[in-house]
Amino acid sequence: MSTKNIIFLVLLVFIPISLAAHFLEWGELIVFITAGLAILPLAAWMGEATEEIAVVVGPSLGGLLNATFGNATELIIALVALNAGLIDVVKASITGSIIGNLLLVMGLSMLLGGLRYKEQTFQSVVARVNASSMNLAVIAILLPTAMNYTSIGISERTVQNLSLAVAVVLILVYGLTLLFSMKTHAYLYDVGVAEIEIEAEEKHEEISEEKPNLWLWTSVLLVCTLFVALESELLVDTLEVATSKLGLTALFTGVILLPIVGNAAEHATAVTVAMKDKMDLSLSVAVGSSMQIALFVAPVLVIAGRFMNQPMDLDFNPFELVAVAVAVLIANSISSDGKSNWLEGTLLLAAYTVLGFAFYFHPV
Amino acid sequence: MSTKNIIFLVLLVFIPISLAAHFLEWGELIVFITAGLAILPLAAWMGEATEEIAVVVGPSLGGLLNATFGNATELIIALVALNAGLIDVVKASITGSIIGNLLLVMGLSMLLGGLRYKEQTFQSVVARVNASSMNLAVIAILLPTAMNYTSIGISERTVQNLSLAVAVVLILVYGLTLLFSMKTHAYLYDVGVAEIEIEAEEKHEEISEEKPNLWLWTSVLLVCTLFVALESELLVDTLEVATSKLGLTALFTGVILLPIVGNAAEHATAVTVAMKDKMDLSLSVAVGSSMQIALFVAPVLVIAGRFMNQPMDLDFNPFELVAVAVAVLIANSISSDGKSNWLEGTLLLAAYTVLGFAFYFHPV
Amino acid sequence: MSTKNIIFLVLLVFIPISLAAHFLEWGELIVFITAGLAILPLAAWMGEATEEIAVVVGPSLGGLLNATFGNATELIIALVALNAGLIDVVKASITGSIIGNLLLVMGLSMLLGGLRYKEQTFQSVVARVNASSMNLAVIAILLPTAMNYTSIGISERTVQNLSLAVAVVLILVYGLTLLFSMKTHAYLYDVGVAEIEIEAEEKHEEISEEKPNLWLWTSVLLVCTLFVALESELLVDTLEVATSKLGLTALFTGVILLPIVGNAAEHATAVTVAMKDKMDLSLSVAVGSSMQIALFVAPVLVIAGRFMNQPMDLDFNPFELVAVAVAVLIANSISSDGKSNWLEGTLLLAAYTVLGFAFYFHPV
Repeated sequence: MSTKNIIFLVLLVFIPISLAAHFLEWGELIVFITAGLAILPLAAWMGEATEEIAVVVGPSLGGLLNATFGNATELIIALVALNAGLIDVVKASITGSIIGNLLLVMGLSMLLGGLRYKEQTFQSVVARVNASSMNLAVIAILLPTAMNYTSIGISERTVQNLSLAVAVVLILVYGLTLLFSMKTHAYLYDVGVAEIEIEAEEKHEEISEEKPNLWLWTSVLLVCTLFVALESELLVDTLEVATSKLGLTALFTGVILLPIVGNAAEHATAVTVAMKDKMDLSLSVAVGSSMQIALFVAPVLVIAGRFMNQPMDLDFNPFELVAVAVAVLIANSISSDGKSNWLEGTLLLAAYTVLGFAFYFHPV
Repeated sequence: MSTKNIIFLVLLVFIPISLAAHFLEWGELIVFITAGLAILPLAAWMGEATEEIAVVVGPSLGGLLNATFGNATELIIALVALNAGLIDVVKASITGSIIGNLLLVMGLSMLLGGLRYKEQTFQSVVARVNASSMNLAVIAILLPTAMNYTSIGISERTVQNLSLAVAVVLILVYGLTLLFSMKTHAYLYDVGVAEIEIEAEEKHEEISEEKPNLWLWTSVLLVCTLFVALESELLVDTLEVATSKLGLTALFTGVILLPIVGNAAEHATAVTVAMKDKMDLSLSVAVGSSMQIALFVAPVLVIAGRFMNQPMDLDFNPFELVAVAVAVLIANSISSDGKSNWLEGTLLLAAYTVLGFAFYFHPV
Repeated sequence: MSTKNIIFLVLLVFIPISLAAHFLEWGELIVFITAGLAILPLAAWMGEATEEIAVVVGPSLGGLLNATFGNATELIIALVALNAGLIDVVKASITGSIIGNLLLVMGLSMLLGGLRYKEQTFQSVVARVNASSMNLAVIAILLPTAMNYTSIGISERTVQNLSLAVAVVLILVYGLTLLFSMKTHAYLYDVGVAEIEIEAEEKHEEISEEKPNLWLWTSVLLVCTLFVALESELLVDTLEVATSKLGLTALFTGVILLPIVGNAAEHATAVTVAMKDKMDLSLSVAVGSSMQIALFVAPVLVIAGRFMNQPMDLDFNPFELVAVAVAVLIANSISSDGKSNWLEGTLLLAAYTVLGFAFYFHPV
């Protein structure tokens, strides 16, 4: 059993602790921290379960599963927060997931990979298609924000209608990018797919040689999903009190802290494979995750907000918009040539640090 | 005779219909629609006449003719609207022509071409020079807008003086890009030129083998120009009443509807040749047209506004500026590697759709 | 002795003239102009002395010296202006040095080089790393400005604290770019280094074959530094009165005039070597200088401001921010493919001209 799995098993103890903290009223801060720690292993196992089920059901359906449930943890936390009316926190966590994946995860991968290998390469065509998709996502959240910022007396309903229309376009585009990467131009992604298989084989050799058990992993997925919903409630309920006790704003918590909790497992994967010089796989995790947030999770939340009667839209805080735009700009500029080195990783991390400072000092 | 020519002949019937509608007072909406339909074949024949005259007078003078009269229809409509004082409509149609060519035409070309060919290629050096020229154009319209937006109590005269100075620089740059593409670095454009010749030969085989008649085509050009001026008057006079009857804003009409009318013939050409895998020619039509609008038509209108005593300048609605900037950004990001596929076309069309929604919902 | 050196010797006469003008009270305008002219040869000789000392002390320490004292003139002028409380002038000269190097110097180099050689090439990997570093610098000055622009009631102290944190990150990044270019990935810069050596050899053949004298050049450096400080006082003291007599704003002076004075010698070098087809060296001077301003001089000034008790921060005039952002955008778009031609140089110069007009008309 790998060190990672042992850590995750130990972290499971925070599920009962967080529940105890909630019912015995140990205070919001303790509930918040323990619920956050309890979500880490649940998220990791949900990812594991999704991958194992994908192996059984075959590449097409499996790819779709991965593409839909890959960010299930973030989606559940966001839905619970949306239901509680914490719309600004939901938007902040979307912002934070995008910039966290593009700058922190991609930056750490390029830095630690680059310390071992002088120059690492990856498919530049894939990087460019991803870059253009992320540009479209920036445009999609830019327009409602810009419309609200440049017009006087625009109604909230108009912004929501525009956001809904844009959300539908984004989900369609997301579907077409899946069609592109899995069917019509799958050959471009062959290197990354080969690296996934090698990685999977290495992992399976460590654990077992058997074919994954569909019912076992489906049960794991369902149980984990249930507990994540549960722990998300604790996390969201205590978020405002707990963060103000820590002297942090809701904005900083949503943009910096929550995404680190929700994405921890993926961060670990991306960095680990980068250090094995599997940059196509590493980038597909980091950029793929941010594309999924921008083109699938965010639009789904806009549509869900309409059904929940919560005024969720794509009109972000202008400062968050600036953050997403610059993150996409610098990530695209660094990845578009299909090569990376440690300095490029450092530049991404520096951009993340600078943004982190800005959100820390931002008075909202 | 090709299907296209038959359609254009049929559309000519809208010239007398629109005149009848005007003099018999059938209502503004009918005049507006019939005048718009009447312009379509006139624009197509003006383009045809320009090309035929270019064949007779030789490549140098011909290239200059094409570069100057290529967007004659848009220029005439814009001059008539400028003379009528509809400055916001003129600016909106500049915005719309740029984003329409970069997103709608280029997007449709890459999508429909990409459905037939897995990957299409074109000269990346040319794409990069074009990208930089369009960046300069964005800067040129950004500065007066940004100056007006960031300063308090700036005089209208200052913005106009800045716009005039910028306009002169842009026209000089346009002249130099012609020098570059026709003289000093013409070899870079050889593929596109060869594709034009093949395309022209194919067309001539369909119609006739004779050398074009200079006087005939000059007469066609003059007559068409006369009628376009005439129909533009009808279009512009009825624009405000007609669009408000359709429930559309003047902004939406200027940005989305007018450019489709003015550019229909070019749209058809760009898409047709893309489906024959002549991407250099297709992009030179789409990007060339948007460069011509930004570096030649827009500056000419600023200078004409000074003479007509109309306060035309380069201070755009900030939302239009955002639209142009993002259109140039995503078009550059997609075209700069000299390769295209259907997903890239789809991303451009998605960006156009999203912008279209935004202009539809924009409350101005 | 070269023409350049004769010009510089003649210009030395302006040191006593400017001092006389000051003490005999010939008027602020004369003091301002003569002090500006006196700084030109001093800046050139400081650069020469730094390079000669670098030859003696060896590549590592020499590279560090060049990287630290390369923009010593600008730094001294800025420190004197900062001490006098002319914070807007300091910020304007930072803006101006960045856009001047990226657009004016790089543009002239590509244009004049491109008139001799049809296409010039340089290391695209280096261009891309530089591009990403400049993007980071834009982000760093964008964030405090955007925070101040998008928030209501933000305290000046918060903006300063954020600026200080960002400044520390930038200096660290600057150190790491030196490590990258001199140690871990020095091979990428080999072409440029070789061109420096050839250029140095050619220059030494003209003057002498002896090894440079460390004490002589250290004395030259110290004396020049002393006089630059001195002349900077005269320049800064008379700046406001003199420029208003010339009908110019402090913004225009800071953004356009001061940087031309401070960078004249480097401009000459970059253009001269570009005309010898040494584009790697030419770009390393132009882009290197702007990187040094953004990642080293600007942060040092923020930190110095804290010690001098002057409220220096990275919250720029939004219009200056726009100027820096578009300069970086178009410079990156033109240099990222590792090739240049005369039209690309023209586009950079056109962008500089347009920005110059905008700063001339800007009412601040």
